[in-house]
Amino acid sequence: MKPIGRAAAQEEISEPACLEILDQHTLGRIAVVVDGQPVIFPVNYVISGQIISFLTGTGSKLSYAPDSKVCFEIDGYDSTTGIGWSVVVQGVAIDATDSFDDVSWAARAATPGPLAPGAKPFRVAIEPSKISGRRFHRRE
Amino acid sequence: MKPIGRAAAQEEISEPACLEILDQHTLGRIAVVVDGQPVIFPVNYVISGQIISFLTGTGSKLSYAPDSKVCFEIDGYDSTTGIGWSVVVQGVAIDATDSFDDVSWAARAATPGPLAPGAKPFRVAIEPSKISGRRFHRRE
Repeated sequence: MKPIGRAAAQEEISEPACLEILDQHTLGRIAVVVDGQPVIFPVNYVISGQIISFLTGTGSKLSYAPDSKVCFEIDGYDSTTGIGWSVVVQGVAIDATDSFDDVSWAARAATPGPLAPGAKPFRVAIEPSKISGRRFHRRE
Repeated sequence: MKPIGRAAAQEEISEPACLEILDQHTLGRIAVVVDGQPVIFPVNYVISGQIISFLTGTGSKLSYAPDSKVCFEIDGYDSTTGIGWSVVVQGVAIDATDSFDDVSWAARAATPGPLAPGAKPFRVAIEPSKISGRRFHRRE
């Protein structure tokens, strides 16, 4: 990631750069809406093309995410350089466990490595509608 | 934070321990729902009692968060020990900039230090309805 100048205290990250950053990380968070209540889950993900996917067991992520609007986010902050950043993906989640649509095929081209224990036989993929990011330098 | 045994691959974190962990960190994420679309924003926060608050400028966080259901999350992973954790707070956001209710008073007892630049004259507080956390050891 290129450093930002002190003059540019905050800047947008382009979509290609956002995808590159997403490809360099593995831990993110997904927000889903359950009965009007947003809920955030940390997930280990992979990205294949523009498709983010992760494995899950039965439970709220799988029950509520597929076919609904979701948000995915990663961020970071380097206290040495004072540079922080975040990448946010809005989109629709689909159950890509064994479907044959293009998104599911793309999702299954890569294999996530979940860190948390427990059986995770299902794959959820996110088809993005908006990918955005920003990078900022700590305020003086 | 106490280490977890190898036998206990995953465990719940008690609410008092969640509050202690929240007090030890400053960077989290809030999810709000905008026209049915969940959106995640990273924020620098403080906690005062059980009330999480952060400063913001005019814009989507302030426009959509107050008086609506939100979710707040922090997480971490130590690759050396293989221990990951997350704390999730569900609740309702309120505009605590200058209100005199109990939540706003509690929120204003502590001062967040936002890292990102820009004027942030407004304070949003989260009154929690549910505080939960979990800690896990990396799968073998």
